[in-house]
Amino acid sequence: MRVNGKAYRTIWRADDGRSVDIIDQTLLPHRFEVVRLRTVDDAARAISTMQVRGAPLIGAAAAYGMCLAVATDASDQSLDAAYDALLATRPTAINLRWALDDMRAHLRNRPREVRVEAAYARAAEICDEDVAINDAIGTHGLAVLRQAAAKRNGKPLNVLTHCNAGWLATVDWGTALAPIYKAHDAGVPIHVWVDETRPRNQGMSLTAWELGQQGVQHTVIADNAGGHLMQHGKVDLAIVGTDRTTARGDVCNKIGTYLKALAAKDNGVPFYVALPSPSIDWTIAMRPRRTSHGLVKPFAGPITIQSPSSGPIC
Amino acid sequence: MRVNGKAYRTIWRADDGRSVDIIDQTLLPHRFEVVRLRTVDDAARAISTMQVRGAPLIGAAAAYGMCLAVATDASDQSLDAAYDALLATRPTAINLRWALDDMRAHLRNRPREVRVEAAYARAAEICDEDVAINDAIGTHGLAVLRQAAAKRNGKPLNVLTHCNAGWLATVDWGTALAPIYKAHDAGVPIHVWVDETRPRNQGMSLTAWELGQQGVQHTVIADNAGGHLMQHGKVDLAIVGTDRTTARGDVCNKIGTYLKALAAKDNGVPFYVALPSPSIDWTIAMRPRRTSHGLVKPFAGPITIQSPSSGPIC
Repeated sequence: MRVNGKAYRTIWRADDGRSVDIIDQTLLPHRFEVVRLRTVDDAARAISTMQVRGAPLIGAAAAYGMCLAVATDASDQSLDAAYDALLATRPTAINLRWALDDMRAHLRNRPREVRVEAAYARAAEICDEDVAINDAIGTHGLAVLRQAAAKRNGKPLNVLTHCNAGWLATVDWGTALAPIYKAHDAGVPIHVWVDETRPRNQGMSLTAWELGQQGVQHTVIADNAGGHLMQHGKVDLAIVGTDRTTARGDVCNKIGTYLKALAAKDNGVPFYVALPSPSIDWTIAMRPRRTSHGLVKPFAGPITIQSPSSGPIC
Repeated sequence: MRVNGKAYRTIWRADDGRSVDIIDQTLLPHRFEVVRLRTVDDAARAISTMQVRGAPLIGAAAAYGMCLAVATDASDQSLDAAYDALLATRPTAINLRWALDDMRAHLRNRPREVRVEAAYARAAEICDEDVAINDAIGTHGLAVLRQAAAKRNGKPLNVLTHCNAGWLATVDWGTALAPIYKAHDAGVPIHVWVDETRPRNQGMSLTAWELGQQGVQHTVIADNAGGHLMQHGKVDLAIVGTDRTTARGDVCNKIGTYLKALAAKDNGVPFYVALPSPSIDWTIAMRPRRTSHGLVKPFAGPITIQSPSSGPIC
């Protein structure tokens, strides 16, 4: 997406052909600064200190972390040590493990002398796949937004989002924000309620910043305000991202998502999760909860945007 | 309640017999400072700038504001002007209008020469009534907390509260926190989850401070965290205050209360509103909402602590 009019991804192979450049997201919205990662330790630190964050981007950063490890030492031991170090950085995002498993499997059975280029090539593929997935989520979600906007008689469609599931959380486009960017580009009048997202303020610091850079109308609100806005008919739909989705379709996402899903259900506001396939954890199905809910039914196909209403969200 | 071991109310007639002293709550938790109000304008400013806040304390401050007005000019015009100026300070708290109506009715039919002392006497009564109400809420709520604590086998009872409905929101004791203080004094092991309460942080700045001053164990949490804690069985019950309660028993309280009530309902966590009688607005019954809820049934009697589950809360 654009920063001061120039197109960026959130992570890319540096011009020295070996290092990896990222946007330091801890400095936003006050400073836009590109930081160079030179070692696997740099990559692990970038994830654990949240210089990069967002489930898809964490996956991409981990993939490039594996590249930095093999560029220094292409042995199996180096690969395993990098895998362990990177896996320990963040517990919630399933994409981290997904990307690490993918990279290790991709490199394990190759001769050491080709591992370095194979690693960078696969990491670039993972990034491109993420962009393609988000692009497709955007196109799919655009149809949903168009339909909702048609009922607004030309007034802006009010969309609520929680945390940052924008292009900064991915390699490009974003998950929850991809449909919003596509709608904005297509001339659909749209206004975004941006949850501040305490305690780390990703909504205020990141979502508001990136929406502003793309020229999308938005308002930062206290996390507490979403239910009130829904009660007063000021939210037409909600879209969030996901850190991890169970095999049953239960969504784990940033703290507070659950409260907004409950309010959406209570007020009949459609609630969507923009869900890229690598965020599905096929190994877990959440245990049944005390209260009964309609279960989430994921759409067919690997790229879905779905409506869990107030399905169990941890 | 105690501040550094010394007993205070939140508002009192100053030792000059005419001015009114308050605790400047905008400086807490960093500085404890008593501020002197000398005119009705001082009182109006104290309310509108939130040096005093909380529905019951706003009522008390408005009553003393009327005293300051008649101390300068005891005419009907002065009384009416003070009424209008004070009423315009804060829109939500019904106690404000209640106290102003009470004071004006009390003074209107008296000769001017006795109005000043009658005003201070009535304001003092309003304060004493507030303390008595909260004391009674505390005693009533203590029984509720004892019963809940009995199921904990000696482990601390975990109570969640939103915003500040402690002694700082009243003249003394508080509404939602009164039962907690009584339980603490009675040796019931108790731990309070304190919602930060964005955007003004009354939980973090005021509730945490006053619980700390009385030695009650507590943890400040992001507003987003309450639902998650309830899902994981870490909240035994929730108690909040109320800005205004309709004749039907619908509760209007600080933004975000509704989200916590929904989560309490979804997780079977008892949800109480500590409700002093002057916070009831008998002139309004909230219009029915789109979704159906069990209605709140207020207990008989003027001093109640009641459980609206997730009843309509604006």
